[in-house]
Amino acid sequence: MKSAELLAVQAKQFGVPRVAIGKEAAGDAALEGDLEVGVGEEALVALASDPEADLVVNALVGTAGLPVTAAAVRAGKRLAIANKESLVMAGGLVTSLAGRTGSELIPVDSEHSSIFRCLRGTASGEVTGIVLTASGGPLRDLPVDEMGSAAVEAVLSHPTWDMGEKITVDSATLVNKAMEVLEAMWLFDLPLERIDVVVHRESVVHSLVRLRDGSLLAHLGSPDMRVPIQYALFYPDAPGVSFDEFRPQEMGTLNFGPVEPERYPCFGLILASAREGGTSPTTAVAADEVAVGAFLERRIRFGDIATVIAGTLDVEGTGPAKDLAAVFEAERSARATAAEIVNDIAGRAAHGPAGTASTTGHSGV
Amino acid sequence: MKSAELLAVQAKQFGVPRVAIGKEAAGDAALEGDLEVGVGEEALVALASDPEADLVVNALVGTAGLPVTAAAVRAGKRLAIANKESLVMAGGLVTSLAGRTGSELIPVDSEHSSIFRCLRGTASGEVTGIVLTASGGPLRDLPVDEMGSAAVEAVLSHPTWDMGEKITVDSATLVNKAMEVLEAMWLFDLPLERIDVVVHRESVVHSLVRLRDGSLLAHLGSPDMRVPIQYALFYPDAPGVSFDEFRPQEMGTLNFGPVEPERYPCFGLILASAREGGTSPTTAVAADEVAVGAFLERRIRFGDIATVIAGTLDVEGTGPAKDLAAVFEAERSARATAAEIVNDIAGRAAHGPAGTASTTGHSGV
Repeated sequence: MKSAELLAVQAKQFGVPRVAIGKEAAGDAALEGDLEVGVGEEALVALASDPEADLVVNALVGTAGLPVTAAAVRAGKRLAIANKESLVMAGGLVTSLAGRTGSELIPVDSEHSSIFRCLRGTASGEVTGIVLTASGGPLRDLPVDEMGSAAVEAVLSHPTWDMGEKITVDSATLVNKAMEVLEAMWLFDLPLERIDVVVHRESVVHSLVRLRDGSLLAHLGSPDMRVPIQYALFYPDAPGVSFDEFRPQEMGTLNFGPVEPERYPCFGLILASAREGGTSPTTAVAADEVAVGAFLERRIRFGDIATVIAGTLDVEGTGPAKDLAAVFEAERSARATAAEIVNDIAGRAAHGPAGTASTTGHSGV
Repeated sequence: MKSAELLAVQAKQFGVPRVAIGKEAAGDAALEGDLEVGVGEEALVALASDPEADLVVNALVGTAGLPVTAAAVRAGKRLAIANKESLVMAGGLVTSLAGRTGSELIPVDSEHSSIFRCLRGTASGEVTGIVLTASGGPLRDLPVDEMGSAAVEAVLSHPTWDMGEKITVDSATLVNKAMEVLEAMWLFDLPLERIDVVVHRESVVHSLVRLRDGSLLAHLGSPDMRVPIQYALFYPDAPGVSFDEFRPQEMGTLNFGPVEPERYPCFGLILASAREGGTSPTTAVAADEVAVGAFLERRIRFGDIATVIAGTLDVEGTGPAKDLAAVFEAERSARATAAEIVNDIAGRAAHGPAGTASTTGHSGV
């Protein structure tokens, strides 16, 4: 079933009067009838700021989520936010706007939901930092010197979470985790250096909060997205439905270790862009999106993703993220630059001897 | 330095006007001077209900703690409670009294402090149970069929916590953990069947709280008693002093598994006494104390501790724990019975062939 058809079925089942969809599905017959169907960004924005909505869940994928986040926050909504790009690209704008309108941001990402839960019981001044867990992604056991040439098929077999292709590649590079660090920075108002990432293969401990006395709180359970989604929907009340009851007696062995920088160069690049600030994180994630697309089309190697991100950051520099227009302009420009770098790498690989494309820098622009 | 001398030094250092000590140290010269020194139970009770005290910390060892707990609770104090026996023997009396006076019980035991911390952030109705972690004690790796004849020296080398002899033996039998289950039952008002114990060798996860959606909250860190003690002293504010900062990146491997009933027969006996209710837990822990003393004196074997507890429970039966007098009478009677059983076992071991003392029941009374 196409998404638009499924939407129509669900809208009917739950008596939903209004939906909004992307332009590409506009003519879909399944959406005719009683249902009021809005089309495109304007309709999404109207829905997110609908006076009747007391909770907005933004689970849009990619940069399309940002205007919707902005609309919900401007309208002072409680916003359950699953769209990473909103905070990675415009965290400063979104959170300062939320501060003015009283909009409350409730995380939906598994890690951030866990942190949110741990934070609820802490006293003022008790939290000194947070620790995000990372499964290490599908390539965690590959010898480091084979990472650069990992095959698309190997990358797309994620060990614990079943997700889309883009996010699975981002999980193999830890770009997804680096984006979560940025999200956490904005959601929980913490400086970057107070946010750590620990590799935890089993994905049982979803994340941890550091306390002033040196101890930590953690939230754990089966890797099941229904848990954080339900939590956001019910918040601040106790979520009602019990999923898989997780039994610590059967937990067996849990492993924890540091992130290896040489295995995950993209992780360091995204964090460096966060330290740079301004439009840099936007540039970095836009370049990543272009590079991942090219990798999935087998135009560049896995190791080239870092090359594209680094090269795009070099070319683009940084500017102030003073409004959404500036952010979107930085994104557009970064995509164009990244596409050029991709073409350059793909061209060299097609004409030069196989395997000689640089993985440590870009000098073709 | 003797404890009484240390008490005098500390009282002087912190400008404490009044102390109370046990009878045996009454004549100690170190306690002369400005300091007002009370002696015996009456003095302890007076101190615990002192109108000037806004927090009472009861860290007395053994049954001597119970009258002090009762006095503090009767006076409506906030009571930081490290004395297990108060709740194991008279949890129903203590908690119903606290309900009437508004006295607040703050746990000091590491596991219970962790649960208390996890509970703070949960919504009403969200908690479905708790999970106490147990290191498994010093004999956790011994073949099960060698447990019965474990040497005193082997038992006294606890892997993670450095504690007194009695509690270390109780850690080897899991009696200590079973007592913690009873404590938790009263402190957190949960039925016994909602309290699980999981063996966790590394003692890093101090305990967990089960949530309605199937996930769990946990508190973790280095095994350091200063952490829960400080938490109780500062509660409800954030504790001020940072001890060892625990780094999850260096956590390595954590193991979790079920309690093996055949390895820890005493654990089952104490829990069975808890299900029995009334004076039964008092009988069980009094018998344990006698048996552990006899084991430390090398009069009975490690495996006989269970025999003494089971035999004493058989002989004593159960009665209502209607007041402290009934509890203390049950304790006195259980001690006498347990001592008889110990004498019987020790006598048989001295006269019969070595290693034939029963470890599964007692028929000598």
